[in-house]
Amino acid sequence: MAQSPTRIETVMQTIQSRITSRTYPPGTRLPSVRALAKTLGFSVSTVVEAYERLAAENVIRARQGSGFYVCGPMPPLALSDIEPRADRAIDPLWVSRQALEAGPDTLKPGCGWLPDDWMYEAGMRRALRSLAQSRNARLVDYATPQGLPELRQLLARRMAALDIEAPPRQILLADSSTQAIDLICRLLLEPGDTVLVDDPCYFNFHALLRAHRATATGIPMTPSGPDTAAFETALRQHKPRLYITNSGIHNPTGAILSPLTAHRLLKLADSAGLIIVEDDIFADFEIHPAPRLAAFDGLSNVIHIGSFSKTVSASLRCGYIAARADWIDQLTDLKIATAFGGGHLAAAAMLSTLTDSGYRKHLEALRNRLAAAMETAVARLGRLGIVPWLVPQAGMFLWCQLPHGIDAAGIARACLKQGVVLAPGNVFSQSLSASGFLRFNVAQCGDERIFSVLSRTLSQAA
Amino acid sequence: MAQSPTRIETVMQTIQSRITSRTYPPGTRLPSVRALAKTLGFSVSTVVEAYERLAAENVIRARQGSGFYVCGPMPPLALSDIEPRADRAIDPLWVSRQALEAGPDTLKPGCGWLPDDWMYEAGMRRALRSLAQSRNARLVDYATPQGLPELRQLLARRMAALDIEAPPRQILLADSSTQAIDLICRLLLEPGDTVLVDDPCYFNFHALLRAHRATATGIPMTPSGPDTAAFETALRQHKPRLYITNSGIHNPTGAILSPLTAHRLLKLADSAGLIIVEDDIFADFEIHPAPRLAAFDGLSNVIHIGSFSKTVSASLRCGYIAARADWIDQLTDLKIATAFGGGHLAAAAMLSTLTDSGYRKHLEALRNRLAAAMETAVARLGRLGIVPWLVPQAGMFLWCQLPHGIDAAGIARACLKQGVVLAPGNVFSQSLSASGFLRFNVAQCGDERIFSVLSRTLSQAA
Repeated sequence: MAQSPTRIETVMQTIQSRITSRTYPPGTRLPSVRALAKTLGFSVSTVVEAYERLAAENVIRARQGSGFYVCGPMPPLALSDIEPRADRAIDPLWVSRQALEAGPDTLKPGCGWLPDDWMYEAGMRRALRSLAQSRNARLVDYATPQGLPELRQLLARRMAALDIEAPPRQILLADSSTQAIDLICRLLLEPGDTVLVDDPCYFNFHALLRAHRATATGIPMTPSGPDTAAFETALRQHKPRLYITNSGIHNPTGAILSPLTAHRLLKLADSAGLIIVEDDIFADFEIHPAPRLAAFDGLSNVIHIGSFSKTVSASLRCGYIAARADWIDQLTDLKIATAFGGGHLAAAAMLSTLTDSGYRKHLEALRNRLAAAMETAVARLGRLGIVPWLVPQAGMFLWCQLPHGIDAAGIARACLKQGVVLAPGNVFSQSLSASGFLRFNVAQCGDERIFSVLSRTLSQAA
Repeated sequence: MAQSPTRIETVMQTIQSRITSRTYPPGTRLPSVRALAKTLGFSVSTVVEAYERLAAENVIRARQGSGFYVCGPMPPLALSDIEPRADRAIDPLWVSRQALEAGPDTLKPGCGWLPDDWMYEAGMRRALRSLAQSRNARLVDYATPQGLPELRQLLARRMAALDIEAPPRQILLADSSTQAIDLICRLLLEPGDTVLVDDPCYFNFHALLRAHRATATGIPMTPSGPDTAAFETALRQHKPRLYITNSGIHNPTGAILSPLTAHRLLKLADSAGLIIVEDDIFADFEIHPAPRLAAFDGLSNVIHIGSFSKTVSASLRCGYIAARADWIDQLTDLKIATAFGGGHLAAAAMLSTLTDSGYRKHLEALRNRLAAAMETAVARLGRLGIVPWLVPQAGMFLWCQLPHGIDAAGIARACLKQGVVLAPGNVFSQSLSASGFLRFNVAQCGDERIFSVLSRTLSQAA
């Protein structure tokens, strides 16, 4: 456009302020383009563009051959449109909503993601720029049901590096790993089925299983994976249909599956006809990759899923499912029925980011930064008597025990009032046996205020 | 980057071809960066960048302090990774998969979207470019659970223009209108519930309701909306929980709801405690807006949903739900549980595109282009004895009757073998009473071959 953007904005602001002051009440016909141009001493095209933009925002409306009219009034954004509600009960969705809805001034050591400036924003910008310019970018059409073949091929190569054999036709792209598990639950669960989860486990698994009317049963976690004796008992007692777990870096404990535990688990699952969903979203944090259940099992009873929300971007939704070919076909039908297309643009941007040679360097820097943050957080929390259950090899989470007798939910409620979102243990625990635990995200623990708020709140509770 | 992209690609291709020819079998250590740079006469940094990119694609792998190694073999993309299967039974998912999986040479008069170059690609490119440059674009973090407040505000204004009062806090962003209906079904349906749909209706409603184990019952369509007598009988007989419909431009018939029918429907629904989902995805095609049920009802028992997949982009997933505040809160919880965050980037790009003053001009041009395409398609189909049930005021669909006694599914199967994807009537019809109908997308009817294939197939069938 040839017109100066400042002039267009001046016209827009002039009109907008006359509408706000009710000089132009709703229904008023605006001055003609020509008349206003003359009054303001601007060109006709400047005023036309300003009117068009106001019409695009539905502030004014064009009537064929009769000019522009002021639309009905619309209240400005209210606080309730933006602010989280603080009055909810503490349940799995409490943490999600408090963390997702928090304003920029809130401190979020309880949230499950990295600060913006730890993510691969440079790569995202490059990817968007290149998509905006690309001639054959498919910016407007639906993706194919299984999703961008080139991204599936790259994912196949990435999984091969973890010894998982998953050809592209056995991979289905999803919008996130949460959607991936949701589709799997739709395919494999009946209401009332029992699903095994780790205790503690990612709290949203509880919310998701509740939405499927499934009964979750927790398996106690050990530093090398789930307790296999408890696993065996649960198989016998509950005849579960699914088991959902993280092998790489377990959320929230940071535990890492050992080959021994992996082998035992798979033997037990196999004899019980149990299907395992292995959620691998923390893969890119790992320094020495843990064994993967999907590698041992050859994608026969294990379904392997993941996404890049933790290391590339959570703003652009893109996850995946690797599974048996017949399941992938049925999952594809379910994806069409419940979401129609996938996000083609998200997949293209993710492909571009992951094959950008900078991503590997970003990950190296990120792992170092996380290791340093982990060390600092352990020391700072230690001074408050908050002790990690284990110090993980990698990743962002520290699963910590509070001083004896202190209730984590009470601390979380009190800290929220002081602008600090914490993740109290029982939202992770099916058996509600983690009331003395908090999960900390070390990457979100850089601000001194977190520790002063915690210290004050702990001494009031003691 | 300072290096020439061509040189980097030359190095990548050299290595890749040696891997393919098994000069470098899996596990081989690649020449050192320095040695290869000398051999090829390129700079060290060129070779480093080429190795980094191959490593990013998982073709080779770096081992700390010991150089780069060839990864295990990975088969190239197989045909089965890209091509649709032609052997499925003709059901609602048949049309979706054939149309979504079709290659670029396939003709798709049966599909439900516009050709790429009819969409607002210029606006999308502008939006992506501006997001890539923007300082405060949130390119990497999760969206707030209800979604970008500024987009919700714009949607509120757009709905106000249709006399629907929906303040931003009563709007929830979804990834698509399909996801919107899916969330509503999760909230309001129990397995076994009856849901009323129009007969015919958008075929994916059938697939979606099946995924929720709901029973769909069809209400015959008239040119001014559903048959209210049949609606009344269905309410009495089936005690349905929901009714899903399009008021603006009905898919597939092009019918437009009249104020009289709207008023009767709402009176009947109100006395039966029925909730109505009004899917408004074709709103931007309308020339004279039809009445909206959500406007008459004030969002008390009507839920209004929509998306921009039909006029802006289907590659970037973004839809919305406007409903009672308490439902929006519960739907938000369900969205977190089953999809976690929404796509922040998709919402930001959609906001930018919709407020771009070019969008209104794009829509005007689009409506004119569709009107012309409609006229041509009616004439061409008429010559083959294929007659529209009505000629719609606007939109892309023509619901057409075949010459007497000819079965649309048979024609669709035969045309598919000749590279033409059709949409046979019964996939839209709950009562399977539309075996003599086809839905045509006039925007996808530009190619003469469609009519020659149809003509030949019809005369073989007659």
